[in-house]
Amino acid sequence: MHPFRTHTCAALNAGNVGETVRLAGWVHRVRDHGGILFIDLRDHYGVTQVLCDPDSAAFAEVEKVRAEWCIRIDGEVKARDPELVNPKIPTGEIEVFVRGIEVLGAAKELPLQVFGDQEYPEETRLRYRYLDLRREAMQKNMTLRSDVVRSMRQRMWDQSFREYQTPIITASSPEGARDFLVPSRLHPGKFYALPQAPQQFKQLLMVSGFDKYFQIAPCFRDEDPRADRSPTDFYQLDMEMSFVTQDDVFATIQPVIQGVFEEFGGGRAVDTVWPQISYADAALWYGTDKPDLRCPIKMRVVSEHFAGSGFAIFAKLLEQEGTEIRAIPAPGGGSRKFCDRMNAFAQKEGLPGMGYIFWRQRTESEIVGEEIKKWLTAKAVNEKDYERFCHTYEVNEQHDRAAKLTEVKKLIESGDPLDRHEAATIQRVHFPDLDDPEAAGPLAKNIGPERTEAIRQQLGLGVGDAAFFLGGKPSSFERVAGKARTVIGEELGLTDKDRFAFAWIVDFPMYEKDDEGGIDFSHNPFSMPQGGMEALQGDPLKVLGFQYDLACNGYELISGAIRNHKPEIMFKAFEIAGYGEDEVRKRFGGMVNAFQYGAPPHGGCAVGIDRCVMLLADEENIREVILFPMNQRAEDLMMGAPSEPLPAQLRELRLRVLPPED
Amino acid sequence: MHPFRTHTCAALNAGNVGETVRLAGWVHRVRDHGGILFIDLRDHYGVTQVLCDPDSAAFAEVEKVRAEWCIRIDGEVKARDPELVNPKIPTGEIEVFVRGIEVLGAAKELPLQVFGDQEYPEETRLRYRYLDLRREAMQKNMTLRSDVVRSMRQRMWDQSFREYQTPIITASSPEGARDFLVPSRLHPGKFYALPQAPQQFKQLLMVSGFDKYFQIAPCFRDEDPRADRSPTDFYQLDMEMSFVTQDDVFATIQPVIQGVFEEFGGGRAVDTVWPQISYADAALWYGTDKPDLRCPIKMRVVSEHFAGSGFAIFAKLLEQEGTEIRAIPAPGGGSRKFCDRMNAFAQKEGLPGMGYIFWRQRTESEIVGEEIKKWLTAKAVNEKDYERFCHTYEVNEQHDRAAKLTEVKKLIESGDPLDRHEAATIQRVHFPDLDDPEAAGPLAKNIGPERTEAIRQQLGLGVGDAAFFLGGKPSSFERVAGKARTVIGEELGLTDKDRFAFAWIVDFPMYEKDDEGGIDFSHNPFSMPQGGMEALQGDPLKVLGFQYDLACNGYELISGAIRNHKPEIMFKAFEIAGYGEDEVRKRFGGMVNAFQYGAPPHGGCAVGIDRCVMLLADEENIREVILFPMNQRAEDLMMGAPSEPLPAQLRELRLRVLPPED
Repeated sequence: MHPFRTHTCAALNAGNVGETVRLAGWVHRVRDHGGILFIDLRDHYGVTQVLCDPDSAAFAEVEKVRAEWCIRIDGEVKARDPELVNPKIPTGEIEVFVRGIEVLGAAKELPLQVFGDQEYPEETRLRYRYLDLRREAMQKNMTLRSDVVRSMRQRMWDQSFREYQTPIITASSPEGARDFLVPSRLHPGKFYALPQAPQQFKQLLMVSGFDKYFQIAPCFRDEDPRADRSPTDFYQLDMEMSFVTQDDVFATIQPVIQGVFEEFGGGRAVDTVWPQISYADAALWYGTDKPDLRCPIKMRVVSEHFAGSGFAIFAKLLEQEGTEIRAIPAPGGGSRKFCDRMNAFAQKEGLPGMGYIFWRQRTESEIVGEEIKKWLTAKAVNEKDYERFCHTYEVNEQHDRAAKLTEVKKLIESGDPLDRHEAATIQRVHFPDLDDPEAAGPLAKNIGPERTEAIRQQLGLGVGDAAFFLGGKPSSFERVAGKARTVIGEELGLTDKDRFAFAWIVDFPMYEKDDEGGIDFSHNPFSMPQGGMEALQGDPLKVLGFQYDLACNGYELISGAIRNHKPEIMFKAFEIAGYGEDEVRKRFGGMVNAFQYGAPPHGGCAVGIDRCVMLLADEENIREVILFPMNQRAEDLMMGAPSEPLPAQLRELRLRVLPPED
Repeated sequence: MHPFRTHTCAALNAGNVGETVRLAGWVHRVRDHGGILFIDLRDHYGVTQVLCDPDSAAFAEVEKVRAEWCIRIDGEVKARDPELVNPKIPTGEIEVFVRGIEVLGAAKELPLQVFGDQEYPEETRLRYRYLDLRREAMQKNMTLRSDVVRSMRQRMWDQSFREYQTPIITASSPEGARDFLVPSRLHPGKFYALPQAPQQFKQLLMVSGFDKYFQIAPCFRDEDPRADRSPTDFYQLDMEMSFVTQDDVFATIQPVIQGVFEEFGGGRAVDTVWPQISYADAALWYGTDKPDLRCPIKMRVVSEHFAGSGFAIFAKLLEQEGTEIRAIPAPGGGSRKFCDRMNAFAQKEGLPGMGYIFWRQRTESEIVGEEIKKWLTAKAVNEKDYERFCHTYEVNEQHDRAAKLTEVKKLIESGDPLDRHEAATIQRVHFPDLDDPEAAGPLAKNIGPERTEAIRQQLGLGVGDAAFFLGGKPSSFERVAGKARTVIGEELGLTDKDRFAFAWIVDFPMYEKDDEGGIDFSHNPFSMPQGGMEALQGDPLKVLGFQYDLACNGYELISGAIRNHKPEIMFKAFEIAGYGEDEVRKRFGGMVNAFQYGAPPHGGCAVGIDRCVMLLADEENIREVILFPMNQRAEDLMMGAPSEPLPAQLRELRLRVLPPED
């Protein structure tokens, strides 16, 4: 017999009854039922119920074990009484009678219970991560993560990509964030850097003639921690291809990501059509370049309705250059209470507020009337029947609105087909005003009914709906507008939570004005400008790059570009942003030099793995999908990192730590 | 038509004749044959011959291209004349007539030719690695590496292991080599470390209940560069399992490694039986714990033959405690020339020399006689024929040895079956002394014929063989002895080069005496001592650990252990080596704390991936199987690493670089 186990804790079933087995695992919990000890023995695979009665020679030893002790037991498999079978677990048909026990690893008093759902502060969880990880939810998240990465690899291989490992101890990479530095012992005073991404190396691979590269690549950015960002190292599915266009990259990576989401999405809907939305449209419609398309709300420019209107704040605003008024339509948001809450939300986010119009806050009877309408539409009531019952009904018309309402409710609940027709009649007679919206809110009063109605028409809204308005330079309100859109969608139930909605955001501008009015790169300086060298001769602010992101449910999952592989176009692109050729050679010499020796056109992207897993695991904190994450202060209290170096180590590196300045 | 290519450069064959195609790739070489330009167009997949005659509208452009330009061509596929078909390449049936060309990336004058086999200094190759990598051998090595890693993953998955990623920016790991440090910006004066291996984390994973872990893990050791070691980061197939014995680990990893070697070994023989050799036996037989078992030589202790013998040096040596005389048998090495060369080798390695005995340096006629003997054995000559011809021959016996020799040579060359028997007779009559070895060399004279013969018997040697002798404390000569064994095996053609020979080295001692006579760990302090706590109560130098290496062809491919998961045994093990409990908790707190909460028995190993690929690619320098390796001074001249940091970076880390001390 194997010294530790003959089966896992998920393996035994009725077929094993009568066998003598050996199991090893952790004591999930112990119960004493009338002197008989019941232990749920747990391992990575499942739980088996083992029990020990006082007659067993092992009883005295079994009595000592406590939760989370690691033990090995020998015992006999017996069938459970039929009424005690637990169909929820694979081992639910049997139990094991203990004949012998060995304590493999005892446990001290636990700072964190594995059994049950008790919540603990994150610091406790991270300090005792090895206990936290034993919990079912964490076991699931970590195996999910492992399986997702495996699936990504398999799908890349299936498309004839090879994985190549690029250096980790290397030079600074031009990603724009802060590098982690590594002092060199052999060259004191000089430092290596950990790569923010294998950007330069994957491009060098393309120059080297490897034309389908991918890597599950560790990336390092010395950034301040955030819920959806690891403060130290994180992983990307990094890929690059030669001789491709932007659409080739999309066609390559979509099946990978869509496939992974379909495989691990737990039945949630996965969009199969991924629209391409320009950066400009995304900003306009969604107020962000990572829109959550599960929310159907699209913002619109409604400046024309406010220009010269009686709403002086907006009318005056529009006289300044670069301003506009944008509307966030809110179908179903037509109550003063809701509008006021959203207004308060905007104020909390730092804006003076959001103006709004809503079309008639509905009374309860109106709501019922609306329901009847929807219901009739859905049932497609036979026109002839409808006429007949209308007639019948009108003859007997004698109740007031409130009484009718009660009657209608009953009709709906009864579900009788004839009654449906009667309900239709009731709606037509008693709630005809449902087709006749009336606007409310201070804004509506200021601009008057005609402009209000024009807005309603443009936005396609009706009774029970609302619209929110933000004005000024888009940069001043766009971020809050985007957030408001998300909150509105969620609060009104418009956002389908059980869905993964993807969109490519394309046509990013190459340049933007910096705070001093100069021209700077707005995103990745290494993207190929659309229109090539010619485009760079014109207005830089109009130049778009072959650069793209993939948005999913409000997260940026992928970022990529077709690269600028022509040295002369690259130098020109940098010149526009104020960097001379020398500076470019100095900072990105490895890549720029390589491009002078026959560089192929190429492009690719990088997929944020932690974020994919977060979405699939339905977690909002990246630390729930990382085995051993740092805490929010970038510390690992379990391992004691970072820590003071030994004087000898510093000496070897010829470094001295300076005292704090203040 | 796709803007860059319709086919790869390996795709076109006779089936495409008549098609208009688009290809992209690099100009491998250009030839001008009577005014027609022939270009070998190369990409990652292969080469296609394209040609352009002066009538083509593209001729003027095509004429400009040079080696390694990246170009796109449009053209028509035509069948080659039958006599020009090249069956060695997939596209050898066709050629493409250029109708249009676009230069995608021109190239400056090349510092390194891709075409041909010219050798370049390593510095040039690394500085222009993107050109070096375009060469066929490097493309092969890198795809091999990628495919090996893929296969390892697949094989681990197939055994139900999951891959889990452990932190890279973390605390120091107890591997014994030097850590790379990473200064913390959020905690100035404190440092993270890059893991020398995920040792602690994988053990923590076991404590967390994940019982089958693996990872293609980046590892970091700040070591001085060596041919078979990367000076910065390298990769291991790291694995760990719970509830297992040493043999379980072997049974798990052998099929993975054996499978990979069978898959990628290019037809070389792969041993399927992997012997387990104790560390002590390996040291004795092979002088190393990573023996090359392709060489059949086993060293032996021959002290008894020298004790009290006439060879005073060895005789006196043996009077000291802990000394011994060891012999390296060298079958076929019995010539003074060879013995002297090996003696010189030992002197070059720092020893006073190696004594030797060889059994009669053979004259030319002896060598021929030996050949006849072998040949007769191989042919299994019929005994009756043999007798008959012996008789015939003896009657006519009239020649001297030298003349007989000439005659024999002729007989052998003629290949006539009757003559073979005559040759046998000649051997018996003229070279009977071949069965009667006579020892030569100064050692033999000193110890006399009886002892010499006893040695010969013990080592199983005969005429034409030699033996080398080393004496003293094993630690003083073992390393050189091991090297000598390898050189002897190779020089004498005993080592089968086309074979992968594996052996598990087991039973490593836990402790050794350090230079001051104290007790220190000899290998991994975290291995479980064989015999557990009880064994630690006795003589520490006799304690063996459940620790093991896998040797293959002279390299250590795998290292691993069954871990010490019991805190009390761990503290005792450290106490013996002079470390108190506080010290252990301070240095390895993460793991030691975890072991107090129900640790399972566990063990595993780590496979050196770079070394596996080196062996498979038949390379002797690890830099031939790494995409972008550092040079021997741990520099990347292409990327400019390491480099001076910006003052602002140092300020942020609160570090100052000190001036050199001398």
